[in-house]
Amino acid sequence: MKKIINPKRIIWRKFTKRPNINLKELDDTVNKVFNAVKENGDEALKKFTLLYDKTVVNNFRISEHELIVAGENLAAELKDAINLAKNNIEKFHVSQKTRKKIVETTNGVECWQESRPIEKVGLYIPGGSAPLFSTVLMLGVPAVISGCKEITLCTPPNKNGDIHPAILYTANLIGIKNVFKVGGIQSIAAMTFGTETVPKVYKIFGPGNRFVTAAKQTAFMNGVAIDMPAGPSELLILADKTTNPSFVAADLLSQAEHGKDSQVICVVNNLELMTAIENEVEKQLNELPRKNIAEVSIQNSQLIYFDKKKDIIDFINEYAPEHFILSVQKEDENYYIGNLNNAGSVFIGKYTPESAGDYASGTNHTLPTNGYAKTYGGINLDSFNKKISFQRISKKGISNIGSVIEIMAEAESLQAHKNAITIRLKSIKNETN
Amino acid sequence: MKKIINPKRIIWRKFTKRPNINLKELDDTVNKVFNAVKENGDEALKKFTLLYDKTVVNNFRISEHELIVAGENLAAELKDAINLAKNNIEKFHVSQKTRKKIVETTNGVECWQESRPIEKVGLYIPGGSAPLFSTVLMLGVPAVISGCKEITLCTPPNKNGDIHPAILYTANLIGIKNVFKVGGIQSIAAMTFGTETVPKVYKIFGPGNRFVTAAKQTAFMNGVAIDMPAGPSELLILADKTTNPSFVAADLLSQAEHGKDSQVICVVNNLELMTAIENEVEKQLNELPRKNIAEVSIQNSQLIYFDKKKDIIDFINEYAPEHFILSVQKEDENYYIGNLNNAGSVFIGKYTPESAGDYASGTNHTLPTNGYAKTYGGINLDSFNKKISFQRISKKGISNIGSVIEIMAEAESLQAHKNAITIRLKSIKNETN
Repeated sequence: MKKIINPKRIIWRKFTKRPNINLKELDDTVNKVFNAVKENGDEALKKFTLLYDKTVVNNFRISEHELIVAGENLAAELKDAINLAKNNIEKFHVSQKTRKKIVETTNGVECWQESRPIEKVGLYIPGGSAPLFSTVLMLGVPAVISGCKEITLCTPPNKNGDIHPAILYTANLIGIKNVFKVGGIQSIAAMTFGTETVPKVYKIFGPGNRFVTAAKQTAFMNGVAIDMPAGPSELLILADKTTNPSFVAADLLSQAEHGKDSQVICVVNNLELMTAIENEVEKQLNELPRKNIAEVSIQNSQLIYFDKKKDIIDFINEYAPEHFILSVQKEDENYYIGNLNNAGSVFIGKYTPESAGDYASGTNHTLPTNGYAKTYGGINLDSFNKKISFQRISKKGISNIGSVIEIMAEAESLQAHKNAITIRLKSIKNETN
Repeated sequence: MKKIINPKRIIWRKFTKRPNINLKELDDTVNKVFNAVKENGDEALKKFTLLYDKTVVNNFRISEHELIVAGENLAAELKDAINLAKNNIEKFHVSQKTRKKIVETTNGVECWQESRPIEKVGLYIPGGSAPLFSTVLMLGVPAVISGCKEITLCTPPNKNGDIHPAILYTANLIGIKNVFKVGGIQSIAAMTFGTETVPKVYKIFGPGNRFVTAAKQTAFMNGVAIDMPAGPSELLILADKTTNPSFVAADLLSQAEHGKDSQVICVVNNLELMTAIENEVEKQLNELPRKNIAEVSIQNSQLIYFDKKKDIIDFINEYAPEHFILSVQKEDENYYIGNLNNAGSVFIGKYTPESAGDYASGTNHTLPTNGYAKTYGGINLDSFNKKISFQRISKKGISNIGSVIEIMAEAESLQAHKNAITIRLKSIKNETN
């Protein structure tokens, strides 16, 4: 890890900068796939599945039978674990439901909001080396709780044309019936336009490599909403002398093993701790099966010492980490939480590792990376709903605010807007005369 | 208006279809402006302001003095009206604040969300024929309530290089200090990249013509969030015999006067009412100053009769109107509200015209058009905030869920994620031994 002591604000950019992701260079590939899928539907999906996933898939839809039997060969303890995680994720996301709150803004004028689910949503579950069934929970549970009517799940097949049973088991557990064996750009295109087999959706969720990220941007340009833009995963830890350096090192490495481009930053206010963490990282790194990946991202990572609390919180807000572990003495926690503006998910205290939120505490692990925590929150129940506003105005209400509307509409030169009021006020006046 | 009786579902598309907006053909223009503004900052803004707005602006920033004196020549009754509207919009948007709710998902595992404002937001207020000070309220009030630190407002100058005093008065009233005399594509580019004068923002809000819409899409591709995609304004009215046909006609016309491409649909369950509304529209149309505009959109509008309630609500959900006026007998209201999935803002009862929500009831008038109400809600307090998730796990908590995380991390081949748990569980075990 690189060690930096009290860096001046003017060079903070050096440390908060993210790797450049040039998605423009993928435009040609993405456009080619989108056009083909739009034109040729399932045929194009077959072609690109052969090209990119190196396997022949003739039927993209996973049958109900496959979904039901998927768990048969999974270890019972894994199924129990997935069940417990599901319950926690459910509890937390159910708690995010909001109640209708009617506000009388003027006597006789009632306003409120109501949530309604987005009817057709698409969930993308990456394939690759590991079966990310945890992401099925993170996207699927809030979609099901929200009552989205048509939930479409796409995930790429492996070279044998299969999907890992843990993914199918999890999908079935939470009640997702529409699972498709298709991934990459072609699956995002399929959910954008719809094919003979894969339904068109209104919003696409889920992580993915830069091809999937570029494809989601193109989906957006074609009128489909997306959860958020994406980049490599990140973790910032703030630790003081009350932490345990071996815990901090383990957390840094858990982030570093994601990929060579993972971002890891550790901020401390104590120089001895700095050395202790560095030594622990070195020690634990050597025992990791994914050492070759973690090593690269650890080399690019920073251990930063600051004297002042104000510098620390300003630096964190400037970086806007996806994951933020706050492991400091109790009496300092409120300062950092209260002044925190930008972060995806926060882990408070030394017994709260990022892994907990990745799997089972109940919070969502689909979070804003790449500095987008300045603008976007992670996925929550709201992500699968939209709020409709309602108003109900009585005769009294329109009598109270009518003239205000008339004056404003006239000043904006919108005579018919004014008329809609005038005609009602006149009618009320005639009635009462 | 075109009259249709009980259209079969298979042809609903004909009526729910929106005008094709081809933004792709604007790409060259938008890219040219974006590149120039990125490269040359204020100089480019001057050039494009001269080109598109036909005026020379040397200083884009409106001075504090200009903001303060803007109201001096405005009619007192207009200022009073703006004040009342502001109060109602404030009341409704303040009521949308959410309280922190801590959920213990497992014994010792606490999770919650907290809202934080997006620090830098950009508000776009269109110019054109009318001074849209009401949009200053709709975007500015929730931004200020949210506590956004840097609120940037851009609005185009007229041919004399001026901005209407009602816009400046309203901005000053709600406390917006950063107002810039720049509009169109160049203003969106300025807020995307920042120039010497105009700050870079994280999210851009506001309506605009198709150039502004295309520019916002390009801003999104450059990493800036946008409120929602846009299209021409729309209104769907559902009326039964308890309504007043002259009110319905006035509401239809208030939408129709927005622009020749405005979308107006009226659904009825009564044939006599159909004729009565048609006659009233004809009558009122002739008295409108913007008759030439309203006439065109009314010609393209539909009056649709349905026998069945189920057809009515399905049609409305399929259309997903930006504005929906529900003027039916009391005992039917709940059916339509309860089964409504897709709409931007709903106006219930015959004394609740769309104009009320456009100006002063308290709800927001920046709403999803073009069928996007299937996916997006209108602007509300949440639009200016993001939610951060928090978790705090005790020794007991990690002991309770630790093994679940270990099993799941192992199954996803993420050994370091597992280690972050194992190291803590071991430490707790050692302590207690």
